[in-house]
Amino acid sequence: MSAQIDPFYAISISGLAQKLKAEGRQVIHMEFGQPSTGAPKAAIARAHEVLDTEAMGYWESAPLKARICRHYAETYGVTVEPVQITLTCGASPALVLALSSTFKPGDVIAMARPGYVAYRNTVKALHMVPLEIACGAETRYQLTAELLAGLDPAPAGVILASPANPTGTVIPGDELARIAEVCRARGIRIVSDEIYHGLSYAEPTRSMLEFEPTAIVVNSFSKYFSMAGWRLGWLLVPRDEAARAIAYMGALFLTAPALAQHAGLVAMDCRDELEGHVATYRRNRELLLEALPALGLQKIAPPDGAFYIWADVGALTDDSLAFCKRLLQDTGVATAPGIDFDPVEGRRFIRMSFAVSTPEIEEAIRRMIPWFAERRGAAAA
Amino acid sequence: MSAQIDPFYAISISGLAQKLKAEGRQVIHMEFGQPSTGAPKAAIARAHEVLDTEAMGYWESAPLKARICRHYAETYGVTVEPVQITLTCGASPALVLALSSTFKPGDVIAMARPGYVAYRNTVKALHMVPLEIACGAETRYQLTAELLAGLDPAPAGVILASPANPTGTVIPGDELARIAEVCRARGIRIVSDEIYHGLSYAEPTRSMLEFEPTAIVVNSFSKYFSMAGWRLGWLLVPRDEAARAIAYMGALFLTAPALAQHAGLVAMDCRDELEGHVATYRRNRELLLEALPALGLQKIAPPDGAFYIWADVGALTDDSLAFCKRLLQDTGVATAPGIDFDPVEGRRFIRMSFAVSTPEIEEAIRRMIPWFAERRGAAAA
Repeated sequence: MSAQIDPFYAISISGLAQKLKAEGRQVIHMEFGQPSTGAPKAAIARAHEVLDTEAMGYWESAPLKARICRHYAETYGVTVEPVQITLTCGASPALVLALSSTFKPGDVIAMARPGYVAYRNTVKALHMVPLEIACGAETRYQLTAELLAGLDPAPAGVILASPANPTGTVIPGDELARIAEVCRARGIRIVSDEIYHGLSYAEPTRSMLEFEPTAIVVNSFSKYFSMAGWRLGWLLVPRDEAARAIAYMGALFLTAPALAQHAGLVAMDCRDELEGHVATYRRNRELLLEALPALGLQKIAPPDGAFYIWADVGALTDDSLAFCKRLLQDTGVATAPGIDFDPVEGRRFIRMSFAVSTPEIEEAIRRMIPWFAERRGAAAA
Repeated sequence: MSAQIDPFYAISISGLAQKLKAEGRQVIHMEFGQPSTGAPKAAIARAHEVLDTEAMGYWESAPLKARICRHYAETYGVTVEPVQITLTCGASPALVLALSSTFKPGDVIAMARPGYVAYRNTVKALHMVPLEIACGAETRYQLTAELLAGLDPAPAGVILASPANPTGTVIPGDELARIAEVCRARGIRIVSDEIYHGLSYAEPTRSMLEFEPTAIVVNSFSKYFSMAGWRLGWLLVPRDEAARAIAYMGALFLTAPALAQHAGLVAMDCRDELEGHVATYRRNRELLLEALPALGLQKIAPPDGAFYIWADVGALTDDSLAFCKRLLQDTGVATAPGIDFDPVEGRRFIRMSFAVSTPEIEEAIRRMIPWFAERRGAAAA
């Protein structure tokens, strides 16, 4: 039998949101982890140009691979070669490539709980064994070197995400260094999902490659570059594993979308516009953090990066899916139920994405304050 | 250890072709299985429109799923519902979904040899066991009901492709019916790759769904719709397996490219333009078939569909990769070595794609005739 994997519950929220919208309601979409902005203007202009001039067959952009290498040099001071980069249809298939080309069925892959739902499900779909490690507020909902040192036996691999989904928390550089050391000593292979890099509100996020050159890195144009629907990402592997990654890419996926590769290359030089989005997220984050006391939500993860608030609503519900549906139905504010990210504790958490416009965040707060007050009153009664 | 899979040897031919082009040579690209034409004009116009008006986040096109259902009704007289359709980033990930959501590691999956290289490699990457069945000229290089009835034990699944890559041969409807019957009786699950549908030069190609409603069907916009680089395909599963397919899609791949979905919907109504491409392929195929005696190539598969000639060059070489490289270097005509498609017999076969323009086919023939004559002379000496 193939592996049994869970559906993405946020999709049922999104379905309800679409239904309400069709009924004329004004919905604020904070349920999905994607920017509401589009690709940078210059990237769109480039796409128009390519549409008119190229037939767009199966294609891999050598200039884009070279540009990504430059990005690693400039951003992290790390030298990588184009052959180490495999361009993919988003981060999801990059993770499939990373796992399938590196591990085998039965291998145990450690990951933080809460964590992105696809980690657990992709590992299961490939008949590997997810080892979800409960991570609470005391470790900022992140794995630590200490937690990894204490696993017996050592897992074959670990998936790290910093900044993380659903929490937005960041693993500091010194902890990444300690994690690298433990993994080296114990033979645990690191897969580092760096999809939220570029979106940080404290210090810049460090790449695992700065500490561990054999780390397998997954990244994408979906978040910082605001190109989710273009489906473009990349996998970065050590030089001596490049031929294998390329062979797996050819077999499983062939190539990434041609237009997205052309546009993505241009997007990488649109810093001003993209940093403008980050400034919006920073402002939205501040507004939400200021509003949390009024919502009665004190227990949240420190959202140092990404564009999420992971909030404990355990005082109000033990059924986050029903809670999110009710919140949406009553206020038009769509959020994601915690059960997508934590099958154990997720019934008392919700995830709010603040990758929307600032007026939308302001309006969402206005709508949520009385609704949460009423729920608190009902819970206290 | 992850599975060892072979690289795509045609890529080394393509690399050499690019090198020659950079040196100023006029290369005719008959090595890859893709149209040299672009997407239909109206589809490109729609893409321009969407680029200017939509932010393009993660998205699934309900209208496209409905349109694909209409296509099954009109083309094959088969009723399918939108929920049975999963939109993917091309046929490759659709095959990954089909296999991973249906079979488990260790399951034996039968397939014709010669066949598309990714069947064998994807099955291996997912730790299933490819059972390559030698198919020769006597069965048009295709699996038959008789071959499947004779397998002991019965495999868990079979991948069928009609029209096939690399041969272009078609399985007639009555044989598809017999195959369906054998598979039903023996519990063999059918995965039908129908990516070359719409490209046939004899009678219209039949869908496996006409004979077996539980067949899993893979298809794409890359061939008939001339949108290879857009990365759009679909998976079709029975109704009671739809939830599983959707969950796997969400976990492994999330969504298909948004722009391709918009453009693909329009492309499905561009029959005149697309049938014009088919007319070109038909003419190219005739020109190649007429030229074969002059090339000394009598032993070919009957190319009833797709856009390939699968030619036995065993009288001239037992190293098709070296042969293709020499042909390219000497004449500028790029072809694919048989070893990509048949690890046993492929050293004496080459695949020529005729999805180029008619003047290119004419020029390719002009260049190849003296070259083949010389090789025949050398072989005879």
